[in-house]
Amino acid sequence: MNKLTQMAAAKQGIITKEMEIVANKEGLDPRTIMERVAAGTIAIPANKNHRNLDPNGVGQGLKTKVNVNLGVSRDCANYEMEFKKVEVALENDVEAIMDLSNYGKTYDFREKLIAMSSAMIGTVPIYDAIGYFDKDLIDLTAKDFLSILELHASQGVDFVTIHAGITRKVAADFRKSERLTNIVSRGGSLLFAWMAMTGNENPFYEYYDEVLDILAKYDVTISLGDALRPGCLHDATDPGQIGELIELSLLIERAWAKNVQVIVEGPGHMAIDEIAANMKIQKRLCHDAPFYVLGPIVTDIAPGYDHITSAIGGAIAASNGADFLCYVTPAEHLRLPDVQDVKEGIMAVKIAAHAADIAKKIPGARDRDDQMAKARNKVDWEGMFDCALDPQKARDYYDSIPAAQQKTCSMCGKMCALRTTNKILDGEIVDIF
Amino acid sequence: MNKLTQMAAAKQGIITKEMEIVANKEGLDPRTIMERVAAGTIAIPANKNHRNLDPNGVGQGLKTKVNVNLGVSRDCANYEMEFKKVEVALENDVEAIMDLSNYGKTYDFREKLIAMSSAMIGTVPIYDAIGYFDKDLIDLTAKDFLSILELHASQGVDFVTIHAGITRKVAADFRKSERLTNIVSRGGSLLFAWMAMTGNENPFYEYYDEVLDILAKYDVTISLGDALRPGCLHDATDPGQIGELIELSLLIERAWAKNVQVIVEGPGHMAIDEIAANMKIQKRLCHDAPFYVLGPIVTDIAPGYDHITSAIGGAIAASNGADFLCYVTPAEHLRLPDVQDVKEGIMAVKIAAHAADIAKKIPGARDRDDQMAKARNKVDWEGMFDCALDPQKARDYYDSIPAAQQKTCSMCGKMCALRTTNKILDGEIVDIF
Repeated sequence: MNKLTQMAAAKQGIITKEMEIVANKEGLDPRTIMERVAAGTIAIPANKNHRNLDPNGVGQGLKTKVNVNLGVSRDCANYEMEFKKVEVALENDVEAIMDLSNYGKTYDFREKLIAMSSAMIGTVPIYDAIGYFDKDLIDLTAKDFLSILELHASQGVDFVTIHAGITRKVAADFRKSERLTNIVSRGGSLLFAWMAMTGNENPFYEYYDEVLDILAKYDVTISLGDALRPGCLHDATDPGQIGELIELSLLIERAWAKNVQVIVEGPGHMAIDEIAANMKIQKRLCHDAPFYVLGPIVTDIAPGYDHITSAIGGAIAASNGADFLCYVTPAEHLRLPDVQDVKEGIMAVKIAAHAADIAKKIPGARDRDDQMAKARNKVDWEGMFDCALDPQKARDYYDSIPAAQQKTCSMCGKMCALRTTNKILDGEIVDIF
Repeated sequence: MNKLTQMAAAKQGIITKEMEIVANKEGLDPRTIMERVAAGTIAIPANKNHRNLDPNGVGQGLKTKVNVNLGVSRDCANYEMEFKKVEVALENDVEAIMDLSNYGKTYDFREKLIAMSSAMIGTVPIYDAIGYFDKDLIDLTAKDFLSILELHASQGVDFVTIHAGITRKVAADFRKSERLTNIVSRGGSLLFAWMAMTGNENPFYEYYDEVLDILAKYDVTISLGDALRPGCLHDATDPGQIGELIELSLLIERAWAKNVQVIVEGPGHMAIDEIAANMKIQKRLCHDAPFYVLGPIVTDIAPGYDHITSAIGGAIAASNGADFLCYVTPAEHLRLPDVQDVKEGIMAVKIAAHAADIAKKIPGARDRDDQMAKARNKVDWEGMFDCALDPQKARDYYDSIPAAQQKTCSMCGKMCALRTTNKILDGEIVDIF
């Protein structure tokens, strides 16, 4: 446990094994990674106790990373289904899994998840407090909150969402605001209610130094949660959201001073025309700390299709600087997702991240697209399936309505534009152009 | 048949019944609609022979409209399935349906489609030429192309895609370019091949005045097709694409001079960071004529999910000025879509259009979102289903995993953030804040 944190090592000019792996994956110089970890613009969440982690970096100049949420809840405590979701996430190479379990055997679930997962694991410790201590919210103490945090950290969780920005002052300002959906962050609502019921300050804010000491001990990255993230387009970019962002920005350098890596969380629901400005504001206020966004969902009226609304928002956010996208499934706003929902959510967020990486000019990001284009030009179906994000779905679709002609598909048949054009260009048919 | 075209009427200061209907739908003054139709910045595709059309406007200051493609092809000539798609399109209030049939009883199919459809109908007459005349492409004459156009126009088609911009000069320039996917427009490839095989000029360009006379007679809107739209990210915004756009821009005022309304078609496949510039260039070159985009698809590697890749591109395009979005289904690049694909494609494009309308600040565009937010804040499920884009899917999802607590869902159960927060704000539980 005496190992330096990633940030402490970076500040001493040490390139860790994790930095080397990240550099190799990203095609960057390990020294560049080290310098950015030292500056806080890249985080490599890697708990000292997460033995089989395959580390990834989040932040400046790196490929956009994606996260899958899962976990058991009281209404749907099907452990087998949740582990099936983990398998789907790992098969599809997601970089992060957040375990949002809030009911039942959360300790055992987390332990098994960390042991089996090469992806970084995140949690929101406060979700787990009520069940773990078997107390009502009002009876939980600041010490309880810290001890559940230490429990998660000691188990090997790589990053934790801590809603330290919803202070009494921020909450008081929020109470004066005119929101349509007040608080939609689960952790944020619990802290807000706890502060209201007990009269106390936010424990993660009041005891922030102790929080950081726990995180530094295991090298857990703090993901500063946005309790007041907008829950609808109306509430986006309002004083509540931006006021909390300012509070979060003031906590970042305190973490870095203790060599704790930081990620900042962001909206939420937001109209398309506000997204770029929000990315810019976060980067400016937060000293270019990595930005992790949930969505943003760009319209509120599409429950059942929120993987699509958030793919739109996520692609725009990441193109404009967001570093880390949380998936949203078609089940969002309606129920706990099932395994198929998880698959659809993963595909949508991977599309958003990849499309953004091309727009961000991440070196090599378009290589696979160009390979696909070449296969398409040759009407080479096996070549196309090879570079498809989901080869099996592409193959199943193609096979379901057989093409009558070789090297065509059932959409255009022998009127295939590529086939026609290439017959001319390749001199197969008369060309007196 | 002596009725004035919409544009001729507008130029004479006449507000037609169609302009009034459009003004009423959009919440705008009929005079504003008339002025913009006269200027060409709004098109109201409304063939004099499409009796039961419920007209819609496309263009400046109006809600973004969406189009569904369907039609029979040689490999999949299932008329019943295509009419089922028409029903799905009409049930979901799409404003336009393009019949891309290229095989079989196309005349009868089109006749029935126009008779049953309150949505505007578009076609690509050249698709129909080979089958209708039962000739090989090389044997078709310029006169054949014009006569198939007149056939469609006389039947009541409201807008036709005419690839008049791929002239011999543009095609020669394209042949010098370094594309990965040469021509992916079906109509464009046929004209390119016909020009190469016959040595003739593009007939729609050579006889453009005759084309316009036919269109003016029935008041068919010309949708200037982009034969060289990019078929992959690599080819986007290249000399071929922009060269053809310039050619199209030079044809617009000739159409307007003959009182033919114009829509311009655009890409295609395109990286996110190029979309805004493309919208700006089109509006500038094309005298603010309405812009109709297919996609743009923002990554090439997601066959099976191209409703999502194009929802991302379409939302960004429309936010930046595109007026009309063509849907793309999950079957794109793989097969002819089935009815479920059509449904998914419609939902994705409607989300893109709606999200863009909010960003474009179309008056009232966010009203339904705000209504959803209010229902969510009250955890009022019936209220949420009422303002959902697809109420049945939302309801089915919610019902599939029953919530144990009233006014929650299976995702968070009694840890619902809204419920917790509102218990405090509504004074239901102790609040010593």
